[in-house]
Amino acid sequence: MYENMIVIDRQARESLQMQIRRQLAICIVNRQFPLHEPLPSIRRLASDLKVSVTTVVQVYSALKKDGFVMSRRRSGFFVNPDALADPGHAAVARERADETQPARVDFATLFQGRSFNRERVVKPADLVVRYRYPFACGLIDPSLFPLARWRECVRDAADVVGVGNCATDFSETDDEMLIEQLVQRVLARRGIFARPGEVLVTVGSQQAIYIAMRLLLAPGETIGVEDPGYPDAVAMARMEGINVQRLPVDDGGLVLSERLGRCKCLYVTPSHQFPTTVTMPPARRSELLELTRQHNQFVIEDDYESDISFNKTPPRALSNLDRRGNVIYVGSLSKSLLQGLRLGYLVADREFVREARALRHYMVRHPPVNNQRSAALFLQRGYYDRFIARLTGIYGRRCDAMHESLERHFPGAAAKPEYGGGNIWLKLPEEVDARILQELVEPDGVYFETGAHAFSDERGNRNHARLGYSVIDEALIAEGIERIARAVPKARGAGAALGKAETRGEPGRPSGELTSRNRWSAARPAVLDDASLQSAAC
Amino acid sequence: MYENMIVIDRQARESLQMQIRRQLAICIVNRQFPLHEPLPSIRRLASDLKVSVTTVVQVYSALKKDGFVMSRRRSGFFVNPDALADPGHAAVARERADETQPARVDFATLFQGRSFNRERVVKPADLVVRYRYPFACGLIDPSLFPLARWRECVRDAADVVGVGNCATDFSETDDEMLIEQLVQRVLARRGIFARPGEVLVTVGSQQAIYIAMRLLLAPGETIGVEDPGYPDAVAMARMEGINVQRLPVDDGGLVLSERLGRCKCLYVTPSHQFPTTVTMPPARRSELLELTRQHNQFVIEDDYESDISFNKTPPRALSNLDRRGNVIYVGSLSKSLLQGLRLGYLVADREFVREARALRHYMVRHPPVNNQRSAALFLQRGYYDRFIARLTGIYGRRCDAMHESLERHFPGAAAKPEYGGGNIWLKLPEEVDARILQELVEPDGVYFETGAHAFSDERGNRNHARLGYSVIDEALIAEGIERIARAVPKARGAGAALGKAETRGEPGRPSGELTSRNRWSAARPAVLDDASLQSAAC
Repeated sequence: MYENMIVIDRQARESLQMQIRRQLAICIVNRQFPLHEPLPSIRRLASDLKVSVTTVVQVYSALKKDGFVMSRRRSGFFVNPDALADPGHAAVARERADETQPARVDFATLFQGRSFNRERVVKPADLVVRYRYPFACGLIDPSLFPLARWRECVRDAADVVGVGNCATDFSETDDEMLIEQLVQRVLARRGIFARPGEVLVTVGSQQAIYIAMRLLLAPGETIGVEDPGYPDAVAMARMEGINVQRLPVDDGGLVLSERLGRCKCLYVTPSHQFPTTVTMPPARRSELLELTRQHNQFVIEDDYESDISFNKTPPRALSNLDRRGNVIYVGSLSKSLLQGLRLGYLVADREFVREARALRHYMVRHPPVNNQRSAALFLQRGYYDRFIARLTGIYGRRCDAMHESLERHFPGAAAKPEYGGGNIWLKLPEEVDARILQELVEPDGVYFETGAHAFSDERGNRNHARLGYSVIDEALIAEGIERIARAVPKARGAGAALGKAETRGEPGRPSGELTSRNRWSAARPAVLDDASLQSAAC
Repeated sequence: MYENMIVIDRQARESLQMQIRRQLAICIVNRQFPLHEPLPSIRRLASDLKVSVTTVVQVYSALKKDGFVMSRRRSGFFVNPDALADPGHAAVARERADETQPARVDFATLFQGRSFNRERVVKPADLVVRYRYPFACGLIDPSLFPLARWRECVRDAADVVGVGNCATDFSETDDEMLIEQLVQRVLARRGIFARPGEVLVTVGSQQAIYIAMRLLLAPGETIGVEDPGYPDAVAMARMEGINVQRLPVDDGGLVLSERLGRCKCLYVTPSHQFPTTVTMPPARRSELLELTRQHNQFVIEDDYESDISFNKTPPRALSNLDRRGNVIYVGSLSKSLLQGLRLGYLVADREFVREARALRHYMVRHPPVNNQRSAALFLQRGYYDRFIARLTGIYGRRCDAMHESLERHFPGAAAKPEYGGGNIWLKLPEEVDARILQELVEPDGVYFETGAHAFSDERGNRNHARLGYSVIDEALIAEGIERIARAVPKARGAGAALGKAETRGEPGRPSGELTSRNRWSAARPAVLDDASLQSAAC
């Protein structure tokens, strides 16, 4: 087993002992061995490498002397943790790195100009622990989640699916119980009639959107996306060579403008428009459907968060009104079940689903079977309904508290979501760059999401923010908002400085990938240094 | 909540009661309500629909009379299961279907000519239970899997990840423990040095292959795929507009022919060539890498099943020999852990992984977090190593039994895998169509996979079969092989009949999607009817 790690050249000038010793040291420094488990035994290594036991004894003894390994009585040799910290030893690791340098493929250059690494909002993984005031969007409050119930379902799913089913291939079929539960408990509630062959389970709603785009649009065709709208939808389309037509939004959601006609397909979020949270009224929905009929268009309806509706039931889904089958309905369990599970679904014509299933097969074969069954049991036993009911009550109170605080500090700047969801859209004063504000409040333990990336004109819309209330404690909302408000004057100054810097030809936004927040971090020295702050103060 | 299911038109001629009654009946017949739970209460429905309680009482009473619902004392109304079976009631469902017919989008026509629905091998989901002799490939034997250990890991993963981590976004990062375990336990064993930033977890190795192709090849460029080779790789490439150059294979795997030079990238399976199971010898590996250097090519090395090596350790992976970073290594935990989990990974240059992560984000965001952590614990606690060791011993014995039986019935036709894996490649007599043979032995409880789809020339290679031994009981192997052998003469006759039918202009293979086996089922009447069998007998 170790003959692949350590390659012996019996014709080399270097002794066998030195060859093994050098390569083992490299493995150790490169952390190829677990810290707390014994290294290969002398006998094992000798047999694998076809060298004498004496040679391996000499190797280990030398490595011990050099501080790479240590021995424990009766347990054999272990990695010496000090070796990993020692800068001298790190040189050993570099040796290997150097040896491979000369002719390496330069992927960075290769991907230049056609990189998928567009700016994307990714929440820090430790968000909930790191920030005292996490105004994050789209997460589930860990303290509300019925973990005991969930564990029960996971356990039972392991019994049923774990062996019999998990061992087979689920590319052609989804978990039947999950489909049944989605149809009866989730879709029926949205007024959507669906038969089992019309539903496809996906790895999160992201995959459902990706598949729908791929099936409905060829490169060079045009998709309409709300402006502001879901930036990942824009990025996905561009990545597939699909043109993007941005479409304006007002307080009734997507505006039914002439531009619609140019699109072969529309991506819309009628229940809670992303990111403004406004809801499209029933009349506009019917009108929109009629327009898509006239233009012979498709619609991808992303109905995210529609199950979290604390005020009143949202209007009927487009897919519910649709009689032509041109609406592809996309839903998610990630916003209301554990996000990390990545369970989404699409509902469409049977022929469409058949094709979507084929594309899904080539992309990932199928979503993990065990999670499908766990979710099915969670739904079937009524835990989901109860959890949603509880969540909705709590979100409703948090939303009230948020809106009240925001009204106090930013009167008229935040629209209260009419039908629920998990966040509020805030329009800051025009001179305030939300990313600067985000940086300023971070040391205070406040996290929120910036909104500019949702617009086609990012520069002109830096004063937008998304404030989620799904994971923040209700009692801390007022304090958190206050901290944001207190930082506004400072952000205003920095923003003015930035504006000047930019007219001087320093865009202040480096290119490259990374998350919105991190990206900005990288740029901070150019923006928030004392000089710019001073010039801003002038 | 029910106002979306039932839409009331107060201007309509039809009475409110009739409108609600008709729509509720449609919902019931279309199985929009769970069978064993109460229907919406009278009070609830009246309040949701803003009608009087009396109206709803009348609705339910009529539905009960018509046999759609039944009442249970103190529990309210329930769906009457008889209503679902009653053909008269089915007419109600059709009513709805008809109403939506006229202007429906015709997706079947839309996707014609550019369908992703290519022929693909998909194992029946109930394979292990349905067949007494399941010579299936790529599955785990449920009776061998250490379910108690796995459940322990799932439980502990739920504790750690379930709440804190599963609630956050893992798009930018994978489970650190899983990466560490892959590096130390899986990759190190294959002699692959990898640092954490060089590994990406994917939704099965299928996604890893898909991502690698997308990143390395633009539409119109050419990928080399072994012939025979993995059909999904061919299908994926075509689906992305990438040209496929098939490359011959001999008993040392991929032949280093001139054709290689035309490809921008090669997809290869050096450990156990798919589907022939031959292993590429070390010298050819080095030569291949040198050629790819000269031609400035990339390699996708699919090292599936390399952890199941019962004979001896396979030669060093290409990725291990690679000093230029042009090899993208793809591995899978699905063949050795539960397949339904869909966990795979790729190992490559850090820049490549960064880009792959971005593409993964737009496709699915990330693989489910809970499964990543469960697998990590399973590896970390040594259960994986023990399971693989056990599996390898058992597979070794089964492989011996398989090969012995095959040698008895088909002397010289089956090559014994040199390094392990889970299946044997069988070349049947030339006149035997493996798909006909498959049909013939099915009633005997025998399942195996046909091999023609792995060739560019499917017609000329219908006499190949893949016989897996991962889920069949060792004691049943001889019986199963004997049943296959006994059916060969009959298959030979049917094959000759098919040949004649084809020269008469009846290709005998319908177009359309479906799995290899099912497709053939559909074609059977044209092939195995009495007349053709008679003409074959002539």
